[in-house]
Amino acid sequence: MSSSEKNYSIILQNDYSEGTHPEILKRIADINLEQNSGYGSDPYCASAAEKIRKACACPDAEIFFLVGGTQTNQVVIDTALAPYEGVVAAQTGHVNCHEAGAIEFTGHKVMELPQHEGKISAAELKKFVDRFWQDGNHEHMVFPGMVYISHPTEYGTLYSKQELEDISDVCHEFHMSLYLDGARLAYGLTAEGTDVTMEDIARLCDVFYIGGTKCGALFGEAVVFTKQNMPKHFLTRVKQHGALLAKGHILGIQFDTLFTDGLYYKIGRHAISLARLLQQGMKEAGLKLFINSPTNQQFVELPDRTLKKLTERGVVYSFWEKNSPDRTVVRFVTSWATKEESIRSLIQILKEAL
Amino acid sequence: MSSSEKNYSIILQNDYSEGTHPEILKRIADINLEQNSGYGSDPYCASAAEKIRKACACPDAEIFFLVGGTQTNQVVIDTALAPYEGVVAAQTGHVNCHEAGAIEFTGHKVMELPQHEGKISAAELKKFVDRFWQDGNHEHMVFPGMVYISHPTEYGTLYSKQELEDISDVCHEFHMSLYLDGARLAYGLTAEGTDVTMEDIARLCDVFYIGGTKCGALFGEAVVFTKQNMPKHFLTRVKQHGALLAKGHILGIQFDTLFTDGLYYKIGRHAISLARLLQQGMKEAGLKLFINSPTNQQFVELPDRTLKKLTERGVVYSFWEKNSPDRTVVRFVTSWATKEESIRSLIQILKEAL
Amino acid sequence: MSSSEKNYSIILQNDYSEGTHPEILKRIADINLEQNSGYGSDPYCASAAEKIRKACACPDAEIFFLVGGTQTNQVVIDTALAPYEGVVAAQTGHVNCHEAGAIEFTGHKVMELPQHEGKISAAELKKFVDRFWQDGNHEHMVFPGMVYISHPTEYGTLYSKQELEDISDVCHEFHMSLYLDGARLAYGLTAEGTDVTMEDIARLCDVFYIGGTKCGALFGEAVVFTKQNMPKHFLTRVKQHGALLAKGHILGIQFDTLFTDGLYYKIGRHAISLARLLQQGMKEAGLKLFINSPTNQQFVELPDRTLKKLTERGVVYSFWEKNSPDRTVVRFVTSWATKEESIRSLIQILKEAL
Amino acid sequence: MSSSEKNYSIILQNDYSEGTHPEILKRIADINLEQNSGYGSDPYCASAAEKIRKACACPDAEIFFLVGGTQTNQVVIDTALAPYEGVVAAQTGHVNCHEAGAIEFTGHKVMELPQHEGKISAAELKKFVDRFWQDGNHEHMVFPGMVYISHPTEYGTLYSKQELEDISDVCHEFHMSLYLDGARLAYGLTAEGTDVTMEDIARLCDVFYIGGTKCGALFGEAVVFTKQNMPKHFLTRVKQHGALLAKGHILGIQFDTLFTDGLYYKIGRHAISLARLLQQGMKEAGLKLFINSPTNQQFVELPDRTLKKLTERGVVYSFWEKNSPDRTVVRFVTSWATKEESIRSLIQILKEAL
Repeated sequence: MSSSEKNYSIILQNDYSEGTHPEILKRIADINLEQNSGYGSDPYCASAAEKIRKACACPDAEIFFLVGGTQTNQVVIDTALAPYEGVVAAQTGHVNCHEAGAIEFTGHKVMELPQHEGKISAAELKKFVDRFWQDGNHEHMVFPGMVYISHPTEYGTLYSKQELEDISDVCHEFHMSLYLDGARLAYGLTAEGTDVTMEDIARLCDVFYIGGTKCGALFGEAVVFTKQNMPKHFLTRVKQHGALLAKGHILGIQFDTLFTDGLYYKIGRHAISLARLLQQGMKEAGLKLFINSPTNQQFVELPDRTLKKLTERGVVYSFWEKNSPDRTVVRFVTSWATKEESIRSLIQILKEAL
Repeated sequence: MSSSEKNYSIILQNDYSEGTHPEILKRIADINLEQNSGYGSDPYCASAAEKIRKACACPDAEIFFLVGGTQTNQVVIDTALAPYEGVVAAQTGHVNCHEAGAIEFTGHKVMELPQHEGKISAAELKKFVDRFWQDGNHEHMVFPGMVYISHPTEYGTLYSKQELEDISDVCHEFHMSLYLDGARLAYGLTAEGTDVTMEDIARLCDVFYIGGTKCGALFGEAVVFTKQNMPKHFLTRVKQHGALLAKGHILGIQFDTLFTDGLYYKIGRHAISLARLLQQGMKEAGLKLFINSPTNQQFVELPDRTLKKLTERGVVYSFWEKNSPDRTVVRFVTSWATKEESIRSLIQILKEAL
Repeated sequence: MSSSEKNYSIILQNDYSEGTHPEILKRIADINLEQNSGYGSDPYCASAAEKIRKACACPDAEIFFLVGGTQTNQVVIDTALAPYEGVVAAQTGHVNCHEAGAIEFTGHKVMELPQHEGKISAAELKKFVDRFWQDGNHEHMVFPGMVYISHPTEYGTLYSKQELEDISDVCHEFHMSLYLDGARLAYGLTAEGTDVTMEDIARLCDVFYIGGTKCGALFGEAVVFTKQNMPKHFLTRVKQHGALLAKGHILGIQFDTLFTDGLYYKIGRHAISLARLLQQGMKEAGLKLFINSPTNQQFVELPDRTLKKLTERGVVYSFWEKNSPDRTVVRFVTSWATKEESIRSLIQILKEAL
Repeated sequence: MSSSEKNYSIILQNDYSEGTHPEILKRIADINLEQNSGYGSDPYCASAAEKIRKACACPDAEIFFLVGGTQTNQVVIDTALAPYEGVVAAQTGHVNCHEAGAIEFTGHKVMELPQHEGKISAAELKKFVDRFWQDGNHEHMVFPGMVYISHPTEYGTLYSKQELEDISDVCHEFHMSLYLDGARLAYGLTAEGTDVTMEDIARLCDVFYIGGTKCGALFGEAVVFTKQNMPKHFLTRVKQHGALLAKGHILGIQFDTLFTDGLYYKIGRHAISLARLLQQGMKEAGLKLFINSPTNQQFVELPDRTLKKLTERGVVYSFWEKNSPDRTVVRFVTSWATKEESIRSLIQILKEAL
């Protein structure tokens, strides 16, 4: 559906339901009559990469721009793993649940760890990997070669710096790389109370990606290899995956814009402040949050009759899960484009509808 | 390189070196503040699909929008073939040469046929397939399940309607599907002298794609399944390939624009008219064309000293191949954005430099 | 190690540590000077298939002989699944744990269910699949297309007929095929107290395999498709997997022998009777069985000092797992070749060593 | 068909139509009551490997035993190549034509070179690879990472030592590995006039395999990595391909026998002497050989009416190809089991039937 055609007024379904931050569209238009050489060999990609290196305080970082999130996970995991290795992830990890088997499509197993509000624990990871190496039959098993985490997670939660350091330590003790899926990184970096910075992530992870699609870009994700560990002939492998964009400069100009004058963080802060407003409003309305998410995804369990009223009032949310016959967990997602008045209206509607 | 930074004045290197047709950019900006549901389930994709169905005179056509050309070839070929089948292509076919093995990456063999200025012949195809089925060992061989052609080909050449009909007949006699790569279809449909229309293509092929990236779009290709033969759970398989765009409406709005008021054909005609101007100019300059291409790619063999002068004068071309020590075949490519004055200048420079 | 070179006297490490049942070796020698056409097109494969059809009371069964267990699981699962489907298995299922990712290598996800002494429950299966189909996002997920069970399981346990019927019902309600890994089927069919026959398996499963390697053959597994559902061009796909044996008649003659005069069952009964003898002996020795396995694998937790003594006395067992600092779970496996005197000696040694 | 059931007397269809050399069967029977540890970790594999190392004069060679030829090609090529690399082979190479796409199944392209009686030329190889590296777009192409040759080739022909050295030189100049498929190596090493020894092969190739299946074994191929270049965790990767034999000692004992007292060469010489006898007989009968093959495969073009008479007289041959309406190229193959009287009878029949 498109918001102009249907009569929805408060759409909080997803951050990728939105258009593109106007500053990005403007830059794309500004350079539209230029010719650029293809496949990322243009000056905008170079400039964006340089700005990202600075934002990471990682002058040697190698950066490659891809189009979408599942594509990025697939390309990074497949190219970073040896063929006999799999990737360890939370049971609820995006790569394990919601990518239609894109990782297995490339021949690698996703090895499940228990999840705790979307996060894995360093202790459980260590136990899992320890057991592998101590198993006398481990040559007949998939080798754990990489750990996948998302930050924010699929539940909107965040790792603390200590948690990331512990996971990173286990990874490196067992010669696994640590990969962080930052599809919603803007919201993770600007959440209140987080002690994790972009520099920490670059320091603790071997590779991560800075999400564009869900953080204000038209599309695009920036993969950052932090330890001079970009897989050999990476461009060729990206091409082999069907993931190489001909007009690569469109990716470059977007990330150049996102990392100019702190736009990426500004987008994050805007969404976070509205998510907090909504959180407070829901609490005031007497609602119990389903998960205490500090980021732009807010989860709440509502009576089905309330949901019906929300829909009648033009509120669009995501179905999350159904735990009882007459109540449903739903998700509201804020973005760069969410308006304060929408959140205030939603709170009002919630209060009335309960 | 970007044309604003370096001092190049006449860039004819590639059609994907260009920006986006202004009308497309405008439409993207127009709908930027709307929210749209994801993955192609928006009204713009629906509207674009409907317009393409009309352009094909194929009311039952099933249409799916993807991001890039290699991605499209990989997804279409992998999902349309049975696992024991391969795809037959000209030795110079894009899928055989310039996609870094993206087809084999999905487990399928590309089976080579001889090429004639980039084209395959129905007679040679028939002989090849005939031999397969008559081979007593064919159960130990890859089954030919699909024929891949490009139109225009990698050499800018075009099939005649009769040639397409003959190839289509062989395909269907031997239960193979016919797939046409239309990365530069705009230029094929508007070439002078062609008798092949979009309707012919839809009628004769089982699946084809209408190229956007090289024909004025920001990015994007429209896959058209013409015989109600879209592979089962196609969206899931696209996702599994890492090829599903979250903000699918950006693809929809582009193709909706390209198929409004004949923009796709207008873009094609503009590039073709300038290619013809260049062709005539080169002939006037006494140059012999390397291939008689009726489309937007023009190939000519030039002395290396001439090329040096061209570069000094700011002309950017593609290297094609080197057949003698002091002469090189180069390619000039026109697009929606090419200016008549650039072509006139190039002709002038050529005349002077020879 | 080889038992002739080292001084081991009681080797119960694995059923594939043994040689070949003498009757099979004899038949191989008998036909050694014949010429046979290749790849399974010989009369012995035909005869073996016919005998298996009778043993299954399934006159339409399609049968194909393969070399090994992991190979069989890989070929069957890959060819029976659609590309967008995965296979559901117990967390401890062989395909999930001990095949080095052979299933994922072919692009398919193994989807974990909880295990109960190696078995899955129909109720949990139903809940899992139900949830998939009710998920609004299931098009972004791997489709459950097949259920994998092993009988006996990796823990030596067996399904009851009722359990198999319940699982089969869930599978067919949700259009999944049911695949039974019978690597040790001889021991499952001849266990005391089982109510599951070969006919039941053929009736309830869509495909299963009759294990040869672990049940007295030199090597080989017989895949049985019971519902005229052998994947199209199966021989070609087996070849494509590198799994087609040139001298296929060696497989045929072995299964022909195994299904002549009830040899397969005779082998099973011999191993079962010695496993029961061992079980009783261990109980008499005051040992608590780790799992109550009715088949040829017996698991027991022993003090490490006892294990040391066993090794000194020439007893070879498998390490299974370590649950406490000074005790270890080990496995003893009987086979067609195990001698009663070995088991009696082992019991004596156990009694002395405790 | 089996020669005992049908009334064929002279079967020269294939070398894998035969049984097993009696000496091998005897050794298998001799050790049948031993227990051996699984997956190749037994003393027979160790002993066989040691004997092969000596036969190659390559004390550091790493050796792994696999079951069949296509499996071996698939495993070796997939594990030795980087993911972005393909394998270069003659257009008629087994991996390109008769393995049902087993190489592409693992994601790698087979890159065709012209063939000359089944062989490739070092000069054409060099030109091909040279062109790749000089192509400005080679990052968008499959990298040539390995060269595959067969010796004897699919046409029974042999490389000379000089030819092998030239090919090896090109491979190493361009950082490609050289892989030799020795499915019929016994016949190559013992052909009259060849100057290529096992030592030469080990010296010039990076990896090759010594064929068992077609050279007297029950089944089995011995892969030899000659430059301490066995891929990392090779056993795990073999398992992942479904290619790891549980009762690995059956492979070990066979190759131990083949490399004891020169049995492998004895088998080769026997087949070669009968192939030469047949060759002479055909020449005497006035027949023109289709290819001048020095090994155990002999090709000749015969009138179809002659072939009909051969069949009536119980001669079984392989169809090779049909080049004219009433004549057919057929293949006769000798082996360890072929009897001199059969060849003499065949010659007599040929003389009468022409």
